[in-house]
Amino acid sequence: MKSLTPDQVWETGARILLSNAYHLYLRPGPEVIESLGGLHSFMGWQGAILTDSGGFQIISLGGLVAIEDEAVRFRSHIDGSLVTFTPEQSVKTQVALGADIIMCLDQPVQYPAGREEAMDAARRTVLWAKRSREIAVPDHQALFGIVQGSVYTDLREWCVRELCRLDFPGYALGGLSVGEPAEEFCRVMRETAAMLPEDRPRYLMGVGHPLDLVEGAAAGIDMFDCVLPTRNARHGRAYTFTGPLNLKNAIHRHDPLPLEEGCPCYTCSKFSRSYIRHLLQEDEVLGSTLLTIHNLRFFFRLMEKIRSGIRSGRMEFVREEIRRVYPRKGYGETASKH
Amino acid sequence: MKSLTPDQVWETGARILLSNAYHLYLRPGPEVIESLGGLHSFMGWQGAILTDSGGFQIISLGGLVAIEDEAVRFRSHIDGSLVTFTPEQSVKTQVALGADIIMCLDQPVQYPAGREEAMDAARRTVLWAKRSREIAVPDHQALFGIVQGSVYTDLREWCVRELCRLDFPGYALGGLSVGEPAEEFCRVMRETAAMLPEDRPRYLMGVGHPLDLVEGAAAGIDMFDCVLPTRNARHGRAYTFTGPLNLKNAIHRHDPLPLEEGCPCYTCSKFSRSYIRHLLQEDEVLGSTLLTIHNLRFFFRLMEKIRSGIRSGRMEFVREEIRRVYPRKGYGETASKH
Repeated sequence: MKSLTPDQVWETGARILLSNAYHLYLRPGPEVIESLGGLHSFMGWQGAILTDSGGFQIISLGGLVAIEDEAVRFRSHIDGSLVTFTPEQSVKTQVALGADIIMCLDQPVQYPAGREEAMDAARRTVLWAKRSREIAVPDHQALFGIVQGSVYTDLREWCVRELCRLDFPGYALGGLSVGEPAEEFCRVMRETAAMLPEDRPRYLMGVGHPLDLVEGAAAGIDMFDCVLPTRNARHGRAYTFTGPLNLKNAIHRHDPLPLEEGCPCYTCSKFSRSYIRHLLQEDEVLGSTLLTIHNLRFFFRLMEKIRSGIRSGRMEFVREEIRRVYPRKGYGETASKH
Repeated sequence: MKSLTPDQVWETGARILLSNAYHLYLRPGPEVIESLGGLHSFMGWQGAILTDSGGFQIISLGGLVAIEDEAVRFRSHIDGSLVTFTPEQSVKTQVALGADIIMCLDQPVQYPAGREEAMDAARRTVLWAKRSREIAVPDHQALFGIVQGSVYTDLREWCVRELCRLDFPGYALGGLSVGEPAEEFCRVMRETAAMLPEDRPRYLMGVGHPLDLVEGAAAGIDMFDCVLPTRNARHGRAYTFTGPLNLKNAIHRHDPLPLEEGCPCYTCSKFSRSYIRHLLQEDEVLGSTLLTIHNLRFFFRLMEKIRSGIRSGRMEFVREEIRRVYPRKGYGETASKH
């Protein structure tokens, strides 16, 4: 949550944060954080914390040396040293950090992946999940399994079946939004969500766009994580329920309106678009801080809208609204039209 | 106040902010700010605002074309266009911005300056002050005059006499801390402060170091402005009453202490030195934000210490304490030793 204090993050409505175990493993090191009383205390965050295992970063940050069943080996992106990381170490690191939700080390594959490659990665992901499950995790921490299998339905099915035998308290959909066409993303997301047990949280990793949240929730997803609200804020873009705004646009030079009328966030209660545009133009960090505060609040308001749509049986209206304002390919037509 | 929201600034104890009329004149332009309801409303600041005329920036930012009695001409550092700026425009701009304290356009000179050069600049500064005083300024805004004269006591005296005839509601000491030796700085600061009327605020511009605040206050200065607390924060340095800290230092890797025990600031109430060091190492803006919050609070606590030292007649003890922890050349020995 670059540039925001934990109190500012909390005030947006956030109650859970994602931290990356891979980054923290390399720097400052889990022993530093443990000696300071754990991650919550280290960073002054009173909410929940989910730690990602870092499998995705290890593979995507380019320092990968080898993935073997025993361990993954990579060069640290900080000092180039050779690091060996096992699924056991990953769980132990996350336990030491004190995270509330812990993710198994897994092996995602980029799109497109051949069936052989996808099968091998899914097999290794399940093997690592089994070994991760052997590690003692305190009761107040929950270890989630991650489903891989690329776009192959039968591989996803096999993976779900194997993971369910291990009876995880929660399951994640991994290896999505990694370059596949929109239609494939939607199909695999919906199919896989439907395979997972109803009484455990389903977590769609690294997603998404406002419409992904709506469609994901409609498909049974309970949890998401995504850089869009923060990254777009840093690029001068605001989310609103009447559509996106580019605050770098000269049209906002004299614009006295808040980012979104009726939004209860700190930014909208105190600042005009004109001022935010000025901050961006002067490259003042406060500009992206204010946009981040607003965008996070937008996403939490969207999730509240979705929850209330589900409760009241009016999810179709939410879907239509977001589809109109944040259109996105791949979801086909809604079942019921108005 | 890079990266801080106005509420965070307020919470440090700040009740007045300095804005630069020169920068705001070029971008976004006073007409934008005026149309948004003035500077307080534009940036969401409920405290007071002092606007600097920008004379110092015009001269120091390198785009200067000519300084003539009529006007100063310079190239905009933004688009290279030729800008003509008169003392009248400067006051009008600051009135339009809605600043509570407005500074006359003046001509500071760098050290060393020959007597001729210093005299010419002081003469022009007085001429501009006279013209500035002709411009209508609403009752709720106060126009301050600025004393120039480099290190020449008689020029400073002449300048004070001329400005006092114009009966300004406050007076500033300009052209100090511009490269002169510490002894010269101290001498001119003390001499000039003593020349100014006791019933008007005396403002020492662009100063200073903790000991400068103590010695300045002892010499009769009421107001200071300085980048040190914020700039040092951005470089990883914290002020404490037991001395400065460099948070980039590896010694703080496992350091569970707050920046300063007993400090009531947000940073010290929630974060360890270890965490701040980690943020700095990762180049996270939050690191300098947290240090800025603490450093500002330190300076306000120092000023409170000074005020209470003056009230209780124990200013010598404050002086000794700060002299020991933040030594600085130029002030000679304290009158009474302990």
